[in-house]
Amino acid sequence: MLEVACIQFDPRVGDKTYNVEHSLKLIGEAASQGAKLIVLPELCNSGYVFNDREEAYSLSEPIPEGDTTQAWTEAARKHDVYIAAGINERDNDKLYNSVVLTGPQGYIGTYRKVHLWNKEKLFFEPGDAKNPVFHTPVGRIGILNCYDVWFPESFRTCALNGAEIVAVPTNWVPMPEQKKEDLPMAVHLCMANAHSNGVFVAAADRIGTERGQSFLGHSVIIEPSGRPISGPASQDQEEIVYGSCDLSKATLSRTVSERNHVLHDRREELYEL
Amino acid sequence: MLEVACIQFDPRVGDKTYNVEHSLKLIGEAASQGAKLIVLPELCNSGYVFNDREEAYSLSEPIPEGDTTQAWTEAARKHDVYIAAGINERDNDKLYNSVVLTGPQGYIGTYRKVHLWNKEKLFFEPGDAKNPVFHTPVGRIGILNCYDVWFPESFRTCALNGAEIVAVPTNWVPMPEQKKEDLPMAVHLCMANAHSNGVFVAAADRIGTERGQSFLGHSVIIEPSGRPISGPASQDQEEIVYGSCDLSKATLSRTVSERNHVLHDRREELYEL
Repeated sequence: MLEVACIQFDPRVGDKTYNVEHSLKLIGEAASQGAKLIVLPELCNSGYVFNDREEAYSLSEPIPEGDTTQAWTEAARKHDVYIAAGINERDNDKLYNSVVLTGPQGYIGTYRKVHLWNKEKLFFEPGDAKNPVFHTPVGRIGILNCYDVWFPESFRTCALNGAEIVAVPTNWVPMPEQKKEDLPMAVHLCMANAHSNGVFVAAADRIGTERGQSFLGHSVIIEPSGRPISGPASQDQEEIVYGSCDLSKATLSRTVSERNHVLHDRREELYEL
Repeated sequence: MLEVACIQFDPRVGDKTYNVEHSLKLIGEAASQGAKLIVLPELCNSGYVFNDREEAYSLSEPIPEGDTTQAWTEAARKHDVYIAAGINERDNDKLYNSVVLTGPQGYIGTYRKVHLWNKEKLFFEPGDAKNPVFHTPVGRIGILNCYDVWFPESFRTCALNGAEIVAVPTNWVPMPEQKKEDLPMAVHLCMANAHSNGVFVAAADRIGTERGQSFLGHSVIIEPSGRPISGPASQDQEEIVYGSCDLSKATLSRTVSERNHVLHDRREELYEL
């Protein structure tokens, strides 16, 4: 059984010291509650709404040698946990909206967001690799980042490569025609894709309003049937969402009838790409 | 504005005369309420739970010359409407779980279900063509059938080929771990795929229990934002769900921010197929 925690909090744009320290405090709290895989929001070390590329650049770091990855890796060692967290990455002089995965034995890998949202396109380069699946001692972990969940192809890519759980660091914002009283469509997207791929989904969203941009919270852990097993959290409170995930259910859930398997039933030759 | 109706009813297995007559009555009712595109359930002329292939065969018909397609085409002419309805198709001696689209000017086309569910595999051949998009005077109509909605690739195929609305004749059955009080995952799947593709979805499900197999109802019309604009209907009552669909919203809804379009942002080269 994999104990999962999604940490929902309110990073402050530009204040990396506060953001990382606060993330370490919340990681410690989640670990003390028994969490083994801890997911944090997108760009949670730097904040999100940059004024310009110069500001984004000033808040970026190389991976794994930058201070943030080092601090999260040290926390992963200390607490014996795995951490998937959004980070502002610099590689030479290119910036990426990345997710770092680190664990008790050290840094594991990075995913660079491939579907950039709105002004992210001004600051970041899009990733040029498929959504990875990291095979770890605690399970096969796929990673998506925020707007990626609008692309069922990305969930499929994770599932076809063996993911049992998809970690989703995110900074979801209201979509056009979103009504405040409705469950955010992002949560419906995660539910639908968990179900049609047979994977757990653990989405950690941020809260707060940054330079006029509001965020949606609703962090959630979803089982392969498509049902939330924990959350969705509030729209605006710092919270940790905990869930016990029996990852063996992921593979089993793909057999949906005596004669049907949601991955094997695909008809690749008949899809437009 | 396209007025859409999804007809939810309880076909009787083996009683084609009753099923077609009842469908004509309900088509007339929907037309009298102003509907222009009328969607009926999967296999609604034959019923669904066949004892064996011989029974399925005995209830099958060629398209368009069979009596059912002729009757629906005559109704489409008489009422000046378009009808998308599930039908048990025979082509030479092969059977297909098909959807026929017919209109005021006559028969338009057929879609043969490509993802067969459970025992359907014993009776039917899978379709071997991509989900079609029919360009009609009232809009660009894509078609999916029941278990197809588990495959986001099929919705994408419709959207990439220009669909503004996807008609879904269906016979949804409870999935493993489905709880009776929960919204069926099929509806979440339709909502998510409407939203991530920018299409209307009009799903007409059947009701009733046939030879021990229950069906889910919940017929629904969903706008491109992903929200139901009509329904979901009940689980067990004969009902017609009506919705006014401004199809121009489909294309417009795909622009989700100043710099994002849900179809153009795809990264085909990074998807596993």
